[in-house]
Amino acid sequence: MTSDRLFTIREADDSIVILDQSLLPYRYATRHVHSLTDAAQAIRAMRVRGAPLIGVAAAYGVALGLKEGVSDKWLDHAIDTLAATRPTAVNLHWALARIRARLLPLPLPQRRAAAWAEARAIAEADAAANRRIGEHGLALLEKIARRPVNLMTHCNAGWLATTAWGTALAPVYAAHEAGLPVHVWVSETRPRNQGLLTAWELREAGIAHTLIADNAAGHLLRTGEIDLLIVGADRIAANGDTANKIGTYLKALAAADCGVPCYVAAPRSTIDPACASGAQIPIEERDGVEVRRVDGLDRHGNHATLTIAAEMTAVANPAFDITPARLIDGIITEDGVCAPAALRASLEQ
Amino acid sequence: MTSDRLFTIREADDSIVILDQSLLPYRYATRHVHSLTDAAQAIRAMRVRGAPLIGVAAAYGVALGLKEGVSDKWLDHAIDTLAATRPTAVNLHWALARIRARLLPLPLPQRRAAAWAEARAIAEADAAANRRIGEHGLALLEKIARRPVNLMTHCNAGWLATTAWGTALAPVYAAHEAGLPVHVWVSETRPRNQGLLTAWELREAGIAHTLIADNAAGHLLRTGEIDLLIVGADRIAANGDTANKIGTYLKALAAADCGVPCYVAAPRSTIDPACASGAQIPIEERDGVEVRRVDGLDRHGNHATLTIAAEMTAVANPAFDITPARLIDGIITEDGVCAPAALRASLEQ
Repeated sequence: MTSDRLFTIREADDSIVILDQSLLPYRYATRHVHSLTDAAQAIRAMRVRGAPLIGVAAAYGVALGLKEGVSDKWLDHAIDTLAATRPTAVNLHWALARIRARLLPLPLPQRRAAAWAEARAIAEADAAANRRIGEHGLALLEKIARRPVNLMTHCNAGWLATTAWGTALAPVYAAHEAGLPVHVWVSETRPRNQGLLTAWELREAGIAHTLIADNAAGHLLRTGEIDLLIVGADRIAANGDTANKIGTYLKALAAADCGVPCYVAAPRSTIDPACASGAQIPIEERDGVEVRRVDGLDRHGNHATLTIAAEMTAVANPAFDITPARLIDGIITEDGVCAPAALRASLEQ
Repeated sequence: MTSDRLFTIREADDSIVILDQSLLPYRYATRHVHSLTDAAQAIRAMRVRGAPLIGVAAAYGVALGLKEGVSDKWLDHAIDTLAATRPTAVNLHWALARIRARLLPLPLPQRRAAAWAEARAIAEADAAANRRIGEHGLALLEKIARRPVNLMTHCNAGWLATTAWGTALAPVYAAHEAGLPVHVWVSETRPRNQGLLTAWELREAGIAHTLIADNAAGHLLRTGEIDLLIVGADRIAANGDTANKIGTYLKALAAADCGVPCYVAAPRSTIDPACASGAQIPIEERDGVEVRRVDGLDRHGNHATLTIAAEMTAVANPAFDITPARLIDGIITEDGVCAPAALRASLEQ
């Protein structure tokens, strides 16, 4: 899955290297992240993105932060700085809580090394969880009669959104490896067009896919083009309500209306037992410039930005929406496929 | 509503002048249309667009076509050429059938003048019908308690889509005239971004509005930001199923899920009694280049186009979808507001 070129985050001596996703698919560039400030900015500016990857990046961000100091105060400063970057994805807070719980009891001289080790463990656990999500999802795909199996996804929940394999795309990669023919319907996912990241990933992997405008999802579901919908998640409440990239709710509504099953694929670190329902999940409002401008290639093939709506245009830009549990057929985690109604019980096990 | 600058179509000696909507909102340019070929191309390339305006433009296209000949054969050639431009909007076929029925019984020397007169009558009837749609819609808006009234629309169904007033926006203009405060949520409407035409119209008229990505519609409906959804239509089947710009179905689903009323505003010429249900409405598939490229302004303020997805990317680009009648609370025509279930009976009156 990962290679010298295809990776999202890597250790490099006393820093990390990230693939800068804010430039993809127009420019491939990696970037060294040396400090806490760099790490927080990389998350905020969505150079790294995707709930699981944000968690991993935040863990490494703590390790970078400890270069400046290892006291409890420094640790909490690093954690608070990273926690403030993005509000919706719970993996961020989960990873920060995990690394804090690991480091706090340790003597100060051991904290730096332990922070790197814990960040690495979080990254490795993410890859392993996603691999298992792929296997559980593959079992669902194998039950579908049509070949190729036609999935629809939203945004990017592929390996770019994680350490490896992805969440919603993990079953796609597992199917491809297993020789099960799949075709993926990819919505561009305005305003940031992360669907184009999905198209880029799938092209790199040689997996058949078709790009559509977000608006086309309902029509394709109604006309029988789609066998199942699989999306990722930024936070799953205890009742199964799921926050994911804005527009997920619309796709889930259309899937339910058309009798097409809808699955959410996410590691257990995306489940927030402290959130009773979607109403408690904070929804990030991002800068309107994301709606007013579009990236692409100009006629010389150079990465460029166009303004599609004037600066004075009022814009609302919620980055996530809530899909109610009633629209979700199953949540695929590393532990298997769980009905949303059974989620709470599974958390108590 | 219309002025020397703000008009969609106008007669000019032996030709017509159109506002070239394919350049808006980045460039304001009018264009002379001299021949049948020009007229067909203007419709196909969406220089004129919007179901009612396509009907009017097609009627004028017949008048232009008769410059080359007035025989039955020529008349049918002109009509067939125009009918082949775009498949979904029924107003096109309605206008062509009306002008054919008017011209065919006439002696050949009278046909040219009669074609211009009939096209003019169709244009004037469109403006008058839309004005009445505005009045009927205003009565609905006045019943809403909140001020300003918050409407959501989709695509552009304003005066740009008609001879004057628009369909979905006619109630907005009527409210603005009547001093009723309104605020319009405008989705950008990928892939052609006709929402930006709506924003342009509303800005010209001084009406408050906020631009959103299409994906944000569900979230805004769920969080109580929207009092009602009003969309236009390209064809309404006898059972009330409605073809409109791709993405309308998703908005209507979310409105129904959130208990927000959904209205379709269209002149009676948009109703196709020959279509029993939405399943019989042909859905236009347009060139994938509309998805792969985006228009805007470059950093010098010049109109430019960016490629967002490579030429080799497979793209599906259905231009319309069907909103089932069960999701529609009322159809606003020049005759009043009609429940979809009562549409068939109203057609028989």
